[in-house]
Amino acid sequence: MAKANRHLAQLKGSYLFAEIARRVKEHAAAHPDADVIRLGIGDVTRPLCPAVIEAMRRAVDEMGRAETFRGYGPDYGYDFLVDAIREHDYAARGVELAYDEVFISDGSKCDVANFQELFSEDCAVAVPDPVYPVYADTNVMAGRAGHPDAAGNWDGLVYLPCHEANGFVPALPARRVDLIYLCYPNNPTGATLTREQLKRWVDYARDNAAVILYDAAYRAYVSRPEIPRSIYEVEGAERVAVEFGSFSKTAGFTGTRCAYTVVPHAVTADAGQGGRVELNALWKRRQSTKFNGVSYPVQRGAAAVYTADGQEQIRATIAYYMENARVIREGLTGRGFRVFGGVDAPYLWMKTPEGLDSWGFFDRLLAETHIVGTPGAGFGPSGEGYFRLTAFNTRENTLRATERLAGWRV
Amino acid sequence: MAKANRHLAQLKGSYLFAEIARRVKEHAAAHPDADVIRLGIGDVTRPLCPAVIEAMRRAVDEMGRAETFRGYGPDYGYDFLVDAIREHDYAARGVELAYDEVFISDGSKCDVANFQELFSEDCAVAVPDPVYPVYADTNVMAGRAGHPDAAGNWDGLVYLPCHEANGFVPALPARRVDLIYLCYPNNPTGATLTREQLKRWVDYARDNAAVILYDAAYRAYVSRPEIPRSIYEVEGAERVAVEFGSFSKTAGFTGTRCAYTVVPHAVTADAGQGGRVELNALWKRRQSTKFNGVSYPVQRGAAAVYTADGQEQIRATIAYYMENARVIREGLTGRGFRVFGGVDAPYLWMKTPEGLDSWGFFDRLLAETHIVGTPGAGFGPSGEGYFRLTAFNTRENTLRATERLAGWRV
Repeated sequence: MAKANRHLAQLKGSYLFAEIARRVKEHAAAHPDADVIRLGIGDVTRPLCPAVIEAMRRAVDEMGRAETFRGYGPDYGYDFLVDAIREHDYAARGVELAYDEVFISDGSKCDVANFQELFSEDCAVAVPDPVYPVYADTNVMAGRAGHPDAAGNWDGLVYLPCHEANGFVPALPARRVDLIYLCYPNNPTGATLTREQLKRWVDYARDNAAVILYDAAYRAYVSRPEIPRSIYEVEGAERVAVEFGSFSKTAGFTGTRCAYTVVPHAVTADAGQGGRVELNALWKRRQSTKFNGVSYPVQRGAAAVYTADGQEQIRATIAYYMENARVIREGLTGRGFRVFGGVDAPYLWMKTPEGLDSWGFFDRLLAETHIVGTPGAGFGPSGEGYFRLTAFNTRENTLRATERLAGWRV
Repeated sequence: MAKANRHLAQLKGSYLFAEIARRVKEHAAAHPDADVIRLGIGDVTRPLCPAVIEAMRRAVDEMGRAETFRGYGPDYGYDFLVDAIREHDYAARGVELAYDEVFISDGSKCDVANFQELFSEDCAVAVPDPVYPVYADTNVMAGRAGHPDAAGNWDGLVYLPCHEANGFVPALPARRVDLIYLCYPNNPTGATLTREQLKRWVDYARDNAAVILYDAAYRAYVSRPEIPRSIYEVEGAERVAVEFGSFSKTAGFTGTRCAYTVVPHAVTADAGQGGRVELNALWKRRQSTKFNGVSYPVQRGAAAVYTADGQEQIRATIAYYMENARVIREGLTGRGFRVFGGVDAPYLWMKTPEGLDSWGFFDRLLAETHIVGTPGAGFGPSGEGYFRLTAFNTRENTLRATERLAGWRV
């Protein structure tokens, strides 16, 4: 009799976004003429830049001619893209990566979700709280999270609380852990770490033979020079950290799908009997067995992001979103809210007013201004009492939303 | 201390194709002027058809304009593609599927590899022998395969031997199993099952509450009407089988990346305490947590396969490859070899001559004719003494290869 994976069956469906969708639908039905503005989901709205479109067009045409057609590509990505990433995202910042330390994939969500497969089931896992839910959910599915309490928190995970009092920078874990997920610039708080703050985590990982899984999906939004865009800007990180990069928010690839993961040869795990094994070798084996590479036209599009034109064009789009962030930030601040993030990240994280929890604020905001955001509690227990807004809508909608907020009395 | 997944670390790298590549490289170095013809790897060579190219071009252009840009798509695929698959690949054959029983992905290899995550670690797994190595390898990585013997076979897997004596149609397993991988038309033997032969497996699965994982990647090569193109053409299969379909070999998408998996609501697994859980619900949870959908232009390209022009164009390409198969088949038969497959499948499976094992034949063939094939032993223990050739090369190379074979004395 085929038995189900009890860990997977244990995981609840995505309550958060399903519940938001349900409430928005109900609201729209009750107010058919309302102009609902969505500042909830972290999806981009600006088109792919001309350099990317041009490269993808050319690649599609190549696929239509026998002389230039491409079948299976390299499992770990084409040279032209791997080398562009090594040069522009790393060498330009003083980080030298070997060719086979960069792995192209169809999305950071997939890589972040799959990477835990490389580790033993009994590894202790630390996740920031609040944070992108995929880190915890995939460890639940793998059986590393123990049992949920009534609020949906897992007794086998080590949560790293991030709140106003610690500036959304978590303290080192009280209990020893083996795997640590970090995401900076952070989703959902918009917080960043300085090199010195990040160095404490690298040192912790070194001292505890732990591995850091560093999600740098929002690195392109960093503006201040003291904020690292890669964990490898911190000395020693190349021996303890894996890094996830993405074209989704950098270049609007959420619907186009391309990302990459950096796995330095020096990062190892315990292989039993005193031996060590390179995560790079394990990831190669995992990817070559379970993955078949990224669409050729998509890889050509991603490589075009690194051309001079591509860089100029994506910078303009990021500046557009960051101007939205400024508009929302000032609007909320002007209304007396306590607001965080939105400087080196496309996310605004605000404290809900006294007496309103995350969902209470969500309901009032939607009912009275027709604006959709995301309740902080959906990102983890320490997100309660906070609310996330994103800078990814159009300028017009962003401006209209802040006008509504200006006249709103909560 | 981060410990490695011991099951993953246990899996050897892809010995087969790495070893082939090594020997071919050595041969090429020793014979720099030799015109090596590759009939080894199962990759296509014909370009994407005009209908697909046109659809992808239009979709790329849409991504470049704000009014038509698309961000994150639906996790399980766009309606336009799901509905085209339901209509053309299923309803047209009398199989009615609900909208949410079809899941779009970036590749059948990924889906076939990931689907085992839905099951408990202690499920007993049956794999045909010989067969596509991903079924066994991913169960090794998940800890269901036990230990390897000296030949690399796993004591925890139930092998289903396929050889000339049983017409490459395996007998039902002697030991009770929970998960059964089947692949028809078969890679590597090119064998197919009739409805009656397939019905025995469906009945076995029903009687043993087992689940069949049916890989139909080569369905487009079926020409005889008595051979089912989908397991759901067999009564009762919708309660015990999951089916994997792909655009890779159907429409030349090996480098473009699109596939789909059918998970009927009626297929369930034991959820413990006497309960059952739909695999459909578990797959939704798995995919929405670990996957982020397929590139929009790629999904548009895949949908164009189902237009009238697309159907005509892909049929012409399949006919081209099947003519190659005929040429190779007749060439080999004419030389006195015993040849199988190549009628409803793009693979030719031949018996190696007396006194030559798979690798011995590989070496002689390469040394004396500069033709590369794949040793049958690489697909499982029962593949020893057989050899695979593919029909995916160009007509010119295929004809030249058979000319060389005609003059070859082994």
